[in-house]
Amino acid sequence: MQTLVPKQVEIDSAFIRSLSDFFPSDRLHTSASQLAVFASDGLTAFSVQPRAIVVPITEQELVQTIQLCCKHAVPFVARGSGTSLSGGSLPHADGIVIALNRMNRILHIDPIDCTAVVQPGAINLAVSRAAEEYGLHFAPDPSSQQVCTIGGNVAFNAGGAHCLKYGMTSNHILGMRVVLGDGTVVVTGSASIESIGPDLTGLIVGSEGTLGVVSEITVRLMPRPESYFTVMLGYASVEEAGDAVSAIIEAGILPAAMEIMDRVSMKAAEAGVGAHYPEGAEAVLIVELDGTRWQVEEERQQLEQVLERTNRIATEIAHSAEERMLIWKGRKSVFSAVGRLSPDFIVQDGVVPRNRLGLALREIAAISQAFGVPVANVFHAGDGNLHPLIMFDGRVAGALERAEQVAARIVQVCIDLGGSITGEHGVGMEKRSFMNAMFDDPSLDLMHRIRMACDPKLIANRDKMFPSADAPAMSMYGLHPLEQAGIVSRE
Amino acid sequence: MQTLVPKQVEIDSAFIRSLSDFFPSDRLHTSASQLAVFASDGLTAFSVQPRAIVVPITEQELVQTIQLCCKHAVPFVARGSGTSLSGGSLPHADGIVIALNRMNRILHIDPIDCTAVVQPGAINLAVSRAAEEYGLHFAPDPSSQQVCTIGGNVAFNAGGAHCLKYGMTSNHILGMRVVLGDGTVVVTGSASIESIGPDLTGLIVGSEGTLGVVSEITVRLMPRPESYFTVMLGYASVEEAGDAVSAIIEAGILPAAMEIMDRVSMKAAEAGVGAHYPEGAEAVLIVELDGTRWQVEEERQQLEQVLERTNRIATEIAHSAEERMLIWKGRKSVFSAVGRLSPDFIVQDGVVPRNRLGLALREIAAISQAFGVPVANVFHAGDGNLHPLIMFDGRVAGALERAEQVAARIVQVCIDLGGSITGEHGVGMEKRSFMNAMFDDPSLDLMHRIRMACDPKLIANRDKMFPSADAPAMSMYGLHPLEQAGIVSRE
Repeated sequence: MQTLVPKQVEIDSAFIRSLSDFFPSDRLHTSASQLAVFASDGLTAFSVQPRAIVVPITEQELVQTIQLCCKHAVPFVARGSGTSLSGGSLPHADGIVIALNRMNRILHIDPIDCTAVVQPGAINLAVSRAAEEYGLHFAPDPSSQQVCTIGGNVAFNAGGAHCLKYGMTSNHILGMRVVLGDGTVVVTGSASIESIGPDLTGLIVGSEGTLGVVSEITVRLMPRPESYFTVMLGYASVEEAGDAVSAIIEAGILPAAMEIMDRVSMKAAEAGVGAHYPEGAEAVLIVELDGTRWQVEEERQQLEQVLERTNRIATEIAHSAEERMLIWKGRKSVFSAVGRLSPDFIVQDGVVPRNRLGLALREIAAISQAFGVPVANVFHAGDGNLHPLIMFDGRVAGALERAEQVAARIVQVCIDLGGSITGEHGVGMEKRSFMNAMFDDPSLDLMHRIRMACDPKLIANRDKMFPSADAPAMSMYGLHPLEQAGIVSRE
Repeated sequence: MQTLVPKQVEIDSAFIRSLSDFFPSDRLHTSASQLAVFASDGLTAFSVQPRAIVVPITEQELVQTIQLCCKHAVPFVARGSGTSLSGGSLPHADGIVIALNRMNRILHIDPIDCTAVVQPGAINLAVSRAAEEYGLHFAPDPSSQQVCTIGGNVAFNAGGAHCLKYGMTSNHILGMRVVLGDGTVVVTGSASIESIGPDLTGLIVGSEGTLGVVSEITVRLMPRPESYFTVMLGYASVEEAGDAVSAIIEAGILPAAMEIMDRVSMKAAEAGVGAHYPEGAEAVLIVELDGTRWQVEEERQQLEQVLERTNRIATEIAHSAEERMLIWKGRKSVFSAVGRLSPDFIVQDGVVPRNRLGLALREIAAISQAFGVPVANVFHAGDGNLHPLIMFDGRVAGALERAEQVAARIVQVCIDLGGSITGEHGVGMEKRSFMNAMFDDPSLDLMHRIRMACDPKLIANRDKMFPSADAPAMSMYGLHPLEQAGIVSRE
């Protein structure tokens, strides 16, 4: 692990003293050991020590904090559970972390209107559990749903295996209270699906904390599916599994989820959780249908007709909830299980149009071979969202750099095929340098102008998402500019 | 009909001459008879003559026009078919109309990715017709879908009877090319459901043309339902019909559409299209299920169980496509058919939380009685979107004013019940004065700052949507400020 440690940062004692005016000592942390806890997130390769941590429990404290930051021009990052895989919740070396874990209440559930009002620190799965008694749930299901927060889901427009059918987080947020970067509180949206004027809710969702901090969120709840059909199919190549995905979509079937794992991913998951995969399969395709018993049965028959025409070499149907859970446990464990095969790895996140999946996979295989860096592929096939796992041994000189080059090449493949640099992990710190490849100058300029309208001092999650001359992205090819300037160092 | 006619507006001949540099004479109109055609929209009570009409056929011409408007600070309104019911496409007396009817091509349909790329002047129904051969359609279905344009649907985030299940226009727009008010072109979104950063697409959808003009739109196409079940239920009161709606939603059924018509609406539709309604019913509830044959059959059985527990006095099932069409023809004809019952009427558009429908209807009845102004109710019951039709005879002194007061009171009821001033018709010219009741100052200020970021000279559909001291909403209680200032007059 490499650590970016701030050097010679002046602690402005007046600023810290002002924070202590409204935060008791158990909710204001400045000691090195406390700061270290918040120094990194899911992008584990890097860490940055912030100047202080505050833990607000009310919106008023949040507003006071941001107003104070604005007055002193101190950058801040709001943080939920720190699961960002793009460094989105990495602290700023001159700034503070606003930890929202104590603002985690589920304030209200309306089973008639199918809505819940929650605080930003509420855990994704906790919201679904609270709605369970009404037969409802919060549909977005990132792999981290047991720990990640709704506030983080909102900031990064989180997806999940089931967003193929149910959409991303943005499709499930009805309204919010937002503290902008200048400390003003705005109310967006409503409990209704109708909205008035420009969609401010949509503007905030996915803005990666660069416009402000969400203090209250009204989410849409959906009926829990009554029934599932989950099947795992073996194919002799990843391309054939990809072709099956296209055939299913073309037949007009919209499964709840369609996931592909290649042989390396299977090997990792098999070692990790004991999920069993078909002999001789180079790829498995997991297809899940959900709905009422009848709906699922009807879709299952349609699906079977399509699958008969594909070159599957194995069909394993989940006959019980336990068998279904094992399939999903295998799929969701890949990231952690790959750690058994390789001491280090980079999780990439890119999108290609669904009809170019096969081409993208061939390109990735070619890059992997050219660099001699093994890549495991596991992905949300239904929406073309790739998650290549690039494996390396950080102890070997040059291995990280080669892995980063492979990661960058894969991102470029996604761009070249008309896709996107990120499906659900966000731009964060990791992919800022690719923003210019995704957006032309007028579009980036518009985003910047909108950001200035919300956060005139540019203190809300500064240096994330936006490419910038004075603070470019964490380089994938060598010394980070902050290292060059002597502000941070790798340890 | 009352007409706002511009008085003493200086035609800047240099500006018009510049327009003629890139528009041939058959696509640049300045004669009074030509201008009159574009002077009003679906809010028929008012009209304003613009200074000129241009008819671009390329994005480049659109950009040149807006750059020229920006240089000369001339306001403009982009117009599709002029079906806005809120005066959203009413010209500005000092400005020009950009008619997008010739930019109406469907550029591309991708049946694998289920997307279409269209120009803003493409007709809503034409997109669905073009997608028909692939078994797909564009889901938003406003009553005006035979004539309204996708560009207008985007500007006003159009709904329709089926948006209960499929969502508003915003749920079906994947990306756009937009010419901002300063003439720069930005590209938003992508063909993928994943997006990066703040949702600029969502920002533009529903912004009522106040940020710029959309020049190309990528829409999501959905599978056409294989099968329908359509039933019309009679109830002895509107409240009981409303209770049935709540019971259906509570049972976890999500119909494609749920519409209520009261006795006056039924009478109008019966006279208009010969639709027959149950004897003695004070309200009918239309419920439509859609999906595959099996899905519909299963939902139909669940629906029947719920309906058995309601106090229905009649059940009329559509046994053929013709019977289904007659039910819908009756429903969609109410607006025009009310003209047979009353020489003039105002269509109101408001939203209340679904669980407050009964209360809202009682309030509307009380207001109708207090003012002695008959009100017909027809509404998208599933999402609480009311469309009261306020009837009056414009030839009777004071009748319009009383009708406008009733309309304003109904809007206030929607606000008081926690709803919204508009469900799908937009704010436009009509409801600007209510924006302050819906949004607090920081939220309106944020919208204004975002608008300034897109359109620094405030020329894009100036005087629409935003409340403003110098150009307040068209008054509902007397002389319009522009009339007071002698700029326009009622004829």
